[in-house]
Amino acid sequence: MSGVTKNLFSAISDPKPMTSRKVTVVGIGAVGMATAVSLLCQGISNDICLIDVMEDRLKGEMMDLQHGSLFLHNPKIHASKDFKSSAGSKVCIVTAGVRQQEGESRLDLVQRNANILKTTIPALCQHSPDAILIIVSNPCDILTYVAWKLSKLPVNRVFGSGTNLDSSRFRFLIAQRLGCSTSSVHGWIIGEHGDSSVPVWSGVNIAGVRLKDIAPKMGDDDDPELWKKVHKDVIDAAYQIIKLKGFTNWAIGLSAAALTNTILTNQHNVHAVSVMVKGRHGLDYEVFLSLPAVIGANGVEKVVMQHLAPNERCALKFSAAMLSEIQCGIKL
Amino acid sequence: MSGVTKNLFSAISDPKPMTSRKVTVVGIGAVGMATAVSLLCQGISNDICLIDVMEDRLKGEMMDLQHGSLFLHNPKIHASKDFKSSAGSKVCIVTAGVRQQEGESRLDLVQRNANILKTTIPALCQHSPDAILIIVSNPCDILTYVAWKLSKLPVNRVFGSGTNLDSSRFRFLIAQRLGCSTSSVHGWIIGEHGDSSVPVWSGVNIAGVRLKDIAPKMGDDDDPELWKKVHKDVIDAAYQIIKLKGFTNWAIGLSAAALTNTILTNQHNVHAVSVMVKGRHGLDYEVFLSLPAVIGANGVEKVVMQHLAPNERCALKFSAAMLSEIQCGIKL
Amino acid sequence: MSGVTKNLFSAISDPKPMTSRKVTVVGIGAVGMATAVSLLCQGISNDICLIDVMEDRLKGEMMDLQHGSLFLHNPKIHASKDFKSSAGSKVCIVTAGVRQQEGESRLDLVQRNANILKTTIPALCQHSPDAILIIVSNPCDILTYVAWKLSKLPVNRVFGSGTNLDSSRFRFLIAQRLGCSTSSVHGWIIGEHGDSSVPVWSGVNIAGVRLKDIAPKMGDDDDPELWKKVHKDVIDAAYQIIKLKGFTNWAIGLSAAALTNTILTNQHNVHAVSVMVKGRHGLDYEVFLSLPAVIGANGVEKVVMQHLAPNERCALKFSAAMLSEIQCGIKL
Amino acid sequence: MSGVTKNLFSAISDPKPMTSRKVTVVGIGAVGMATAVSLLCQGISNDICLIDVMEDRLKGEMMDLQHGSLFLHNPKIHASKDFKSSAGSKVCIVTAGVRQQEGESRLDLVQRNANILKTTIPALCQHSPDAILIIVSNPCDILTYVAWKLSKLPVNRVFGSGTNLDSSRFRFLIAQRLGCSTSSVHGWIIGEHGDSSVPVWSGVNIAGVRLKDIAPKMGDDDDPELWKKVHKDVIDAAYQIIKLKGFTNWAIGLSAAALTNTILTNQHNVHAVSVMVKGRHGLDYEVFLSLPAVIGANGVEKVVMQHLAPNERCALKFSAAMLSEIQCGIKL
Repeated sequence: MSGVTKNLFSAISDPKPMTSRKVTVVGIGAVGMATAVSLLCQGISNDICLIDVMEDRLKGEMMDLQHGSLFLHNPKIHASKDFKSSAGSKVCIVTAGVRQQEGESRLDLVQRNANILKTTIPALCQHSPDAILIIVSNPCDILTYVAWKLSKLPVNRVFGSGTNLDSSRFRFLIAQRLGCSTSSVHGWIIGEHGDSSVPVWSGVNIAGVRLKDIAPKMGDDDDPELWKKVHKDVIDAAYQIIKLKGFTNWAIGLSAAALTNTILTNQHNVHAVSVMVKGRHGLDYEVFLSLPAVIGANGVEKVVMQHLAPNERCALKFSAAMLSEIQCGIKL
Repeated sequence: MSGVTKNLFSAISDPKPMTSRKVTVVGIGAVGMATAVSLLCQGISNDICLIDVMEDRLKGEMMDLQHGSLFLHNPKIHASKDFKSSAGSKVCIVTAGVRQQEGESRLDLVQRNANILKTTIPALCQHSPDAILIIVSNPCDILTYVAWKLSKLPVNRVFGSGTNLDSSRFRFLIAQRLGCSTSSVHGWIIGEHGDSSVPVWSGVNIAGVRLKDIAPKMGDDDDPELWKKVHKDVIDAAYQIIKLKGFTNWAIGLSAAALTNTILTNQHNVHAVSVMVKGRHGLDYEVFLSLPAVIGANGVEKVVMQHLAPNERCALKFSAAMLSEIQCGIKL
Repeated sequence: MSGVTKNLFSAISDPKPMTSRKVTVVGIGAVGMATAVSLLCQGISNDICLIDVMEDRLKGEMMDLQHGSLFLHNPKIHASKDFKSSAGSKVCIVTAGVRQQEGESRLDLVQRNANILKTTIPALCQHSPDAILIIVSNPCDILTYVAWKLSKLPVNRVFGSGTNLDSSRFRFLIAQRLGCSTSSVHGWIIGEHGDSSVPVWSGVNIAGVRLKDIAPKMGDDDDPELWKKVHKDVIDAAYQIIKLKGFTNWAIGLSAAALTNTILTNQHNVHAVSVMVKGRHGLDYEVFLSLPAVIGANGVEKVVMQHLAPNERCALKFSAAMLSEIQCGIKL
Repeated sequence: MSGVTKNLFSAISDPKPMTSRKVTVVGIGAVGMATAVSLLCQGISNDICLIDVMEDRLKGEMMDLQHGSLFLHNPKIHASKDFKSSAGSKVCIVTAGVRQQEGESRLDLVQRNANILKTTIPALCQHSPDAILIIVSNPCDILTYVAWKLSKLPVNRVFGSGTNLDSSRFRFLIAQRLGCSTSSVHGWIIGEHGDSSVPVWSGVNIAGVRLKDIAPKMGDDDDPELWKKVHKDVIDAAYQIIKLKGFTNWAIGLSAAALTNTILTNQHNVHAVSVMVKGRHGLDYEVFLSLPAVIGANGVEKVVMQHLAPNERCALKFSAAMLSEIQCGIKL
């Protein structure tokens, strides 16, 4: 203890090392950092642990966030390649992952990312036995399954960010066409996070007015207003942004932060997230796909059972079968 | 479970009943409700328990807050005369208390309020064994002592809101005179929350510039700029507002909410709060008086030892002696 | 300028007297103050003007809020009985009004409150020619009509808080029954703010799932799950809270603050507010009733045309006719 | 207008295209984007315009932020290489700039960045004639001078982010050593943003206790507690982070966002920013250096005149002379 400290303060008790809202972000690429900054700037957590293997960059990001301490209400910023630093987290967000290499098969990619989870997930569970795990890494649905298997946790404690972002993009694009706020448009994209995602046109509504009731062909191939284009734009969004700026990070980071907020504040909000679907919508595969679900401090509390059209159920089944097949090839 | 619930949802796990930031407010008078509303509107806690003996009013306040749920990010609002409802709180704020009756001696008033604490404090500690207690009821310093005694807790776990509000008023009034923001003026009022509070003029500064260095007579009786008037206005503030509107509530509620925020986010901010002073500034009495202190998740972590002028130390000693004498007369 | 100011600062420019988000609240009863505190604590505006005729209380409330300045990011708090103080407001919220006296007819009450608006509205419009007016005083729909007439403003610039609060209560009560967050339940109450309000059961949904599709009798008299009781509870809410605590204030204040936020941030959110209904839903009367409407910086931008059931249209028509008749008796 | 829009809505008024808090960020490198995200996530502005010459990347960043709309309260995100898009901004933040090339003299670098301002500043001023300009690009002090000259605005309307960040780092590092929050440590770094910045040790205080009074040698070369190291660490911070992660962005973005917040909410907070120093502290050069200043809606309102030690004044003078000389060589 320095002389100043000794003479400035009269000690009363030992400070506690952490808060009740600690969040660990694994992976400090563009997505991980966007997640951390969203959590801090929105006041969702002021106790963040960053985990990665790149020690230099880890230290750089930690220092850069710490230097903003004054503008962020004095958060605690931890960073380490050692999972011990993550101890006591309430939520762990996994953004780590490698990208597809030229000539690499999709299964090879999945296997490489699964391998990363083999070290990550058990270490997170060991140090934060009460945490909820959110998987953001891609392919999100399969990796959520892998993380769940590796974690040995009940299904409510592990979910994927899934189509929470796709639904947000969907609502934004509809809102732009209609001239109202994104949050006043209600619409859900479910299923696989990616090319085979399923827009549930029957549920799209504003103030309880189903748009399908106004435009019955909405979402169909022969719709004169071409609303199907909106779903196509959602699917293309990531590809297009990657082409334009090299990667996507802000919206996915905000999506992960919003999910974290719902958990930490135990709000019981409905989000489209990747959950174990076996036994729902006639699906028999042990796979994870996004469905609207009530989220709280205990993770996934319940799944909202939408009334799906035959083609929507069919699309879900197709995704489930495909994911199941890929999963069979993964060595856990 | 209703038919709708059964058909709408597919259950996955039981919701958790609470958050990690539950706060109990005892007493739903104007101060208690201002505290609760400050906590909810500022997002400091979204899990509030109101405790009072007036069951009708309690239910009315609970319903009124619950109906604002949509505008407050879905908080949990509990209300009961039974302390069981407060279980698991991280912070308990005591605002309950009776007012002085005509012809009643100050000691009689203190005894009546102490009696309220006799039922309140043990019940709070029983149901929330890890909570930090903040005493807001008046006379604040004595009741903090009483609460501490009744709680059998270590001194870091019980403190009074004390001169946190007086200091805020002091800074506002100086800021108004100088034409800058309240938060850019730094100044501290310590000692008794009330008429014998002590302004530490030597520490008043803006951007590190001590105003005493510019106006050496600042705070003195013969100061041509009459800065002493600012302290007088602070002392008179409560009396004047009570005369004008019948009671004070907003600023004291905001003050209590700010202290709660510092605890729940473990920020280690310095606030002037009522702490056990024995052994500090040459004081030998086991009494509580406000001093600047570092506050965190563990309550009071350390006291900042200001360099007090002889008259300031003298004023503190006078308050301490007076409080000690009153305390001797209280039947615990 | 004091000596300290002169020696502490070197002047560069004159401060601007206001912000771009000034809000005036007329009437500092429980509702007006709950509105002001909601605006300040939620950071919706940090520039509030309170207007009332009770000068003492006005000064008391102003001082009490100002003393919380440190905890509220240094807001400007003005208070005066002179409307000049409201100059430059972007939103003016009218909460002033008298209560029904024993033996007083409803029309007499309306006339007395209309008289208050005769002095209030022109003065607000004179000093804040660009402001949007929100009428909160009751009977809300009629007084919104009166305010609109007195203001000579286009219909988009004057609306009533109407059933924004009723809808919030509706959603909260449904959410409680279903076990999810209020904000994840979508449901709308339209029409008159009060006993003859109309719940649009056909639009109630969660994640796009219409509850009517699960429980076709929802809202009907012969519904085995008695959902109609929820609407009855919404109607009874104000009466019950008034019986329990004497008045309602928190939820209505939060509702008014939410509407103000949508205007100041130009969000184009859909809220149920009291708007001129002539020419909509087959209504021919020049009256104000609540309908879901897109709100932005320009006030009411457009009304959402719900598909109402015959009994819902009928209920609206009945309310419109009744309001029209009362309006005929008002001396403007 | 699509069929859905026509049948869903009944129009009342034209939406306003913007808010009263529009902010333009020029330059969408890491710093510009961190600034934009800090503004959006902290709710400081929900109306952001990004300006850059890289059209692809611009579109990518715009889309990525827009897709987070649901999680950010429906902000407006504009992006264009055409300054017309910035029209009506209240604050313009300039982060654009090139980096030093191998073998390039400092003056050549300054000239290249000054050339960028030649097109930027007049265009900003043309489209947002009431805006306050904040210069973040480096070398910050010289470029603020250049921007001021090019803008032809009064000195209050143009300032540099200067040592607002250095001071934040300083306070964080002291807070870490003492074990309290960054915001409870008060300390100021003034002068040049960079290697020759000046820490005003005499003003460093906690709760009004000057640390110099406890440790008189604080900041001196022969200080046994080596506090000078803290200033060295502040100077080295940027270099070290650049070495570790390639660039700095979060803390500087948060710093710029905090300055913007003070302007938009007209708070009159004191920040250390780069202002015209001629005539202050005995400086005769027309250069910009950081001093603590009161900031509000009108930009720089007044400068706080600290009592500087002779070596501190000397350091300022040295920086001023050096900057003045470089400025002479710039072709405007």
